[in-house]
Amino acid sequence: MNIVFLGTASCFPTPSRGVSCTALQLEEGHVWLFDCGEGTQIQIQKSRIRPGKVNRIFITHLHGDHVFGLPGLLCTLGNGGNTEKKSVHIYGPLGLRNLLATTFEISGSPLPYDYHVHELIPESWQFPTDREYNVTALEREYINPRETSTTKILYDPITKSWPLFNDGKYIVVAGALTHRIPCFGFIIQERDQLGSLDVKKLKELGLSPGPKYALLKNGKRVALDNGDVIEPLDVTGPIKKGRKIVILGDTCDNSPMTHLDMDCTIILHEATMEESLREKAIQYGHSTPKMAAAFAAEINAQRLCLFHVSPRYRPISSVTTSENEEDAENLSAKILLDEAQNHLTKMEFKCGLDIAEDFGEIKL
Amino acid sequence: MNIVFLGTASCFPTPSRGVSCTALQLEEGHVWLFDCGEGTQIQIQKSRIRPGKVNRIFITHLHGDHVFGLPGLLCTLGNGGNTEKKSVHIYGPLGLRNLLATTFEISGSPLPYDYHVHELIPESWQFPTDREYNVTALEREYINPRETSTTKILYDPITKSWPLFNDGKYIVVAGALTHRIPCFGFIIQERDQLGSLDVKKLKELGLSPGPKYALLKNGKRVALDNGDVIEPLDVTGPIKKGRKIVILGDTCDNSPMTHLDMDCTIILHEATMEESLREKAIQYGHSTPKMAAAFAAEINAQRLCLFHVSPRYRPISSVTTSENEEDAENLSAKILLDEAQNHLTKMEFKCGLDIAEDFGEIKL
Repeated sequence: MNIVFLGTASCFPTPSRGVSCTALQLEEGHVWLFDCGEGTQIQIQKSRIRPGKVNRIFITHLHGDHVFGLPGLLCTLGNGGNTEKKSVHIYGPLGLRNLLATTFEISGSPLPYDYHVHELIPESWQFPTDREYNVTALEREYINPRETSTTKILYDPITKSWPLFNDGKYIVVAGALTHRIPCFGFIIQERDQLGSLDVKKLKELGLSPGPKYALLKNGKRVALDNGDVIEPLDVTGPIKKGRKIVILGDTCDNSPMTHLDMDCTIILHEATMEESLREKAIQYGHSTPKMAAAFAAEINAQRLCLFHVSPRYRPISSVTTSENEEDAENLSAKILLDEAQNHLTKMEFKCGLDIAEDFGEIKL
Repeated sequence: MNIVFLGTASCFPTPSRGVSCTALQLEEGHVWLFDCGEGTQIQIQKSRIRPGKVNRIFITHLHGDHVFGLPGLLCTLGNGGNTEKKSVHIYGPLGLRNLLATTFEISGSPLPYDYHVHELIPESWQFPTDREYNVTALEREYINPRETSTTKILYDPITKSWPLFNDGKYIVVAGALTHRIPCFGFIIQERDQLGSLDVKKLKELGLSPGPKYALLKNGKRVALDNGDVIEPLDVTGPIKKGRKIVILGDTCDNSPMTHLDMDCTIILHEATMEESLREKAIQYGHSTPKMAAAFAAEINAQRLCLFHVSPRYRPISSVTTSENEEDAENLSAKILLDEAQNHLTKMEFKCGLDIAEDFGEIKL
């Protein structure tokens, strides 16, 4: 599994940072995208991701820096005679279907494959109370010819989450975040896997390599010639715990999904601006590195990766061009990383820590 | 006046070519954009254009590579406390207002300035006859809070054009092109200007430099102390003919607007692919360089600039990286330039010729 950052800026894209898009490359070859800000299709071209491999797209919320690249990406995803692309599943808040259907209809864009929008229906407490958000405008009757079907995913009050799918290997759910419009975080829980076959033990039981090995490896019981039944767990090493990836949208308060994020392998958490701007960050529904670090500790995350940073912070890897070194240092994203590390140290909580830069990768 | 190419690719953006956007910098400091493909706001950042100077945007048609960058650009145009931005006028085909209003509404995007959409109502013969285009979906009742008002511009059968505005210095009209959906070209006609004051002649008439000079310079009559009236034309040099800029959208047939383009100073004409692909070009509603050259000759253009080229043609200025020089040459945009030049020579028509590359500029 590999996380590739295709856009790490908040608010607006710049030549050095695209707006929100994170790719998750799975061992099976599929690529899942999380958010799709303007310019995502260009960022993909600059990366090693193959567009034809994208088969699921998850949108945290409908602000432009998270979704305005989606119509263009979907229009060109099937380019180049890519015959392997049959359909794309898109998950995101209510309104996403209307946005895509209206955009494709008005622009007269025919897609060369089918798409399926799974809309997460927000709970009433997620909507802003000011007048800027017109909830009734989110739905539309029209169905695009390439929409195979539409799914509405409702909040499950038992698990306090929106169940997206379970494909046998991954269970994916969404949880609510506090932002200025309905916003979600996604949890990708990999199924636990059986350990390697204990060949020595199998031979002692009189079983030689062959089809029955494959059955056991796939978790099936096998009967020996003498009638004894072997359980897979009896002849495999320790269970390999599935990884748990948490990718959050914009937020100033994660409490509605704390319970879903516990003990994750990695959490991608926004850190839009530094602690001295905390009040402004929260006013706009965002977090500081200190807030992200505190949450990572609360959920006992093994690794915290900060992303979605204001374009005011230049990538740490960029060359310092300012003549005033002190000024340049102040504008580096390193200040965000340091703030998070300092707070983790202060809390005596140990976890991996990264800050995302465009085209950076994390192997899991 | 200065033309700056911000995106010269057709169909999809690449790291070396943005999709359609051309900026016209006026002497007064204002900037007008023609089309706004995805990534335009990033291209502007890479250029010397100041976003706050953009006060009019013209959209030739609603295909994604010409308009998908507009919502993002409009959302960030007022960034950075740009207090000089009060309003933006946007001109384009029917459907543009709905596209913007729906996008802004669903994404909950508040703009920090007003915008005014002037929709060109296509004639019935401009709509495609296949089922891909749903004309009734183009309009919507909803009005965005930042829409100051909405204008519908109807076809004028006398001039065979859509009159957009006349601000005293420029008269701008649109003409119809043949493409797969309603598509327009824009003609910017600068008003003729008086020549310089003939100071010698004025002195002979007994008029010394002062306020009356300014009046004459501005085209006003002036009365001398002896009661004689001086006409500005009598004391100024030859009239400076206004420039005429023609910027076309996608097209495989310009005949509906030939009469509007005659004798222009410069025409920006698409040349998506080479002559050997003419059949495919026309099938998709596009032109070859030969078609563009023929049209330039037909309208007696002083200068022809090709743009909107397939991403398969790398910019001429790019370094050859291919090991096979012959292959690399075939993929250069120079092949398009050469085809146009060869056809101009064959027709014995002389005019300036350029091919646009991103961030290239033409001074007029």
